[in-house]
Amino acid sequence: MRFDIPLPDDTARLEALAHLDGLVKPVGSLGRVEELAAWLAAAHGSMPPRPLDDVRVVVFAGDHGVSDPAGPHGAVSAYPREVTASMVRVFLAGTSGVTVLARQVGARVRVLDIAVDGELADVPAEVTAHKIRRGSGSIDVTDALAPGEAERALAAGMAVADAEIDAGADLLIPGDMGIGNSTVAATLVAAVLGLPAEDVVGTGTGVNEAGRARKVAAVRAALARTADRASDPLSTFTALGSACAAATAGFVLRAAERRTPVLLDGVFSCAAALVCAELAPEAPRWWLAGHRSTEPSQAFALKALGLTPLLDLGLRLGEGSGAVQAVPLLRSAQAVISEMGLLADLA
Amino acid sequence: MRFDIPLPDDTARLEALAHLDGLVKPVGSLGRVEELAAWLAAAHGSMPPRPLDDVRVVVFAGDHGVSDPAGPHGAVSAYPREVTASMVRVFLAGTSGVTVLARQVGARVRVLDIAVDGELADVPAEVTAHKIRRGSGSIDVTDALAPGEAERALAAGMAVADAEIDAGADLLIPGDMGIGNSTVAATLVAAVLGLPAEDVVGTGTGVNEAGRARKVAAVRAALARTADRASDPLSTFTALGSACAAATAGFVLRAAERRTPVLLDGVFSCAAALVCAELAPEAPRWWLAGHRSTEPSQAFALKALGLTPLLDLGLRLGEGSGAVQAVPLLRSAQAVISEMGLLADLA
Repeated sequence: MRFDIPLPDDTARLEALAHLDGLVKPVGSLGRVEELAAWLAAAHGSMPPRPLDDVRVVVFAGDHGVSDPAGPHGAVSAYPREVTASMVRVFLAGTSGVTVLARQVGARVRVLDIAVDGELADVPAEVTAHKIRRGSGSIDVTDALAPGEAERALAAGMAVADAEIDAGADLLIPGDMGIGNSTVAATLVAAVLGLPAEDVVGTGTGVNEAGRARKVAAVRAALARTADRASDPLSTFTALGSACAAATAGFVLRAAERRTPVLLDGVFSCAAALVCAELAPEAPRWWLAGHRSTEPSQAFALKALGLTPLLDLGLRLGEGSGAVQAVPLLRSAQAVISEMGLLADLA
Repeated sequence: MRFDIPLPDDTARLEALAHLDGLVKPVGSLGRVEELAAWLAAAHGSMPPRPLDDVRVVVFAGDHGVSDPAGPHGAVSAYPREVTASMVRVFLAGTSGVTVLARQVGARVRVLDIAVDGELADVPAEVTAHKIRRGSGSIDVTDALAPGEAERALAAGMAVADAEIDAGADLLIPGDMGIGNSTVAATLVAAVLGLPAEDVVGTGTGVNEAGRARKVAAVRAALARTADRASDPLSTFTALGSACAAATAGFVLRAAERRTPVLLDGVFSCAAALVCAELAPEAPRWWLAGHRSTEPSQAFALKALGLTPLLDLGLRLGEGSGAVQAVPLLRSAQAVISEMGLLADLA
């Protein structure tokens, strides 16, 4: 597996920084917003950068065997897995958190059934067109994916990114929906960074301390089961991940290959991105972190990726709901560098 | 001086919190956004709260004698005071930072010459209609205002708030423009909270360490000069503030009296608000903090007001430029509580 990630345009970045210093404000006084403006100029290879009119969220929905309360480690989530399938319908109805928030910023939301544990016969065919399997395996006792499935899921994510970019996307946001997601994300982060289960596991959607202890035990069992077998991205997704994690990774990697900015969301997209960053160390230069999640493993993943979140609002919903709220900051950065006057023109 | 500040509607707040718990998401998973939604419901006395369509920024522009580099403490700003008058024209041209950022969120910006040290004969009459004086006094050596001027400035800010609210404002943002603003703001915060000059003074628009030492000396001299004379808001504005500080305070207090939400901006508006909060302890219930400034005195003011900023982006421009960028978060909160589906309706 090899990724051919281009570098952002450093000439445009330097041109942007020089321009920002000449705007009618104290040098550097717009802080992070100025950094974003220069980042966009580098990503677009143009000064000023283009407006981010077409923002697209793709929600990768799927289940995880580890969320089965009848499994050896008991319930790791506050919700039953049947919620995942129901939520796909809520996305399509336009009343989920991220769809409401996306409307506020004029972003589109597309939901895909990648590995929902059920047959969604009532949804449009495009929703299930990239389905890999019904639920991923319970990582505490078995591999998440069968041979070949990680490759197929990664390719599905890439195909979806291609389709969105071809349709005009200026900015992509990976969303996630799946009961058990934060357990899988914590496991992936622990495996990649060599961290103990205790350090990476949080309370997810809101489990109590006993629930968190069950999550820790499940993550520990998963890590012990696979030992050092998780040595490359595809093996890691196969052993400890899920079809959604691999698809999400493919989505953000293809965006980087195609010079398209990405706003990562919470723990799930950051964990998926982290798994592949070793093989594509330049990819994080095309990604921004939308928000700081309450999950500890997201903080580890962001640090390893060298990313600092734009928002810190105590969010832990997933779906892309945090990243989509950071979109106005990117648009503000683009507007500042494009529309502000020059200090030299002061009367 | 007496302020009659109503209380937000606790019934609407509790109704909002109950509704939020029933939305199709894990309980509390939208963190601060849920707090904002409940806050808005309480402010509006209605569940759901109304959309925040009409957002208005009022920039109070004025000069301060303390910014005179020929004064006893030398230059406290990286810019000459002539910039203040020039910037009023930049606001009117629509190319200042806050006007560019306000366009992004559909907010209006109005700039007022409250105490610019010059005659702005070329600007529309409404810009200078509330002018109190040409520059406020140099607080390190003399009072900022003559007797009666603090009252007039406070009344001007109130009249402006009334006009904006009568014209339909759903949300008010106080902006500031004035070379020397952060020195005056630091002095006010130090006086109200009894802090030493060294703790409250920052680098403002970007002075070096020598410049910061001059600011500390100027603030220390101002505090020593007035001793305990700054015992009530009007005396404090007269001795250590400026016409803009008093006008800003009047603006945010009248908004509270009229049940209109306010997004405070950086160090200047927070310092002005703090001066009056002792006499109107319920007023901060109508205020939100838009962003965390890099100025240390803003942090002290926010803590005393019991406010936690929504954004933390290293901004130090003033003008209302930080608060205006937090507007999308308030609108997101209003949308979430108004448009999301219910968990009980899950198929």
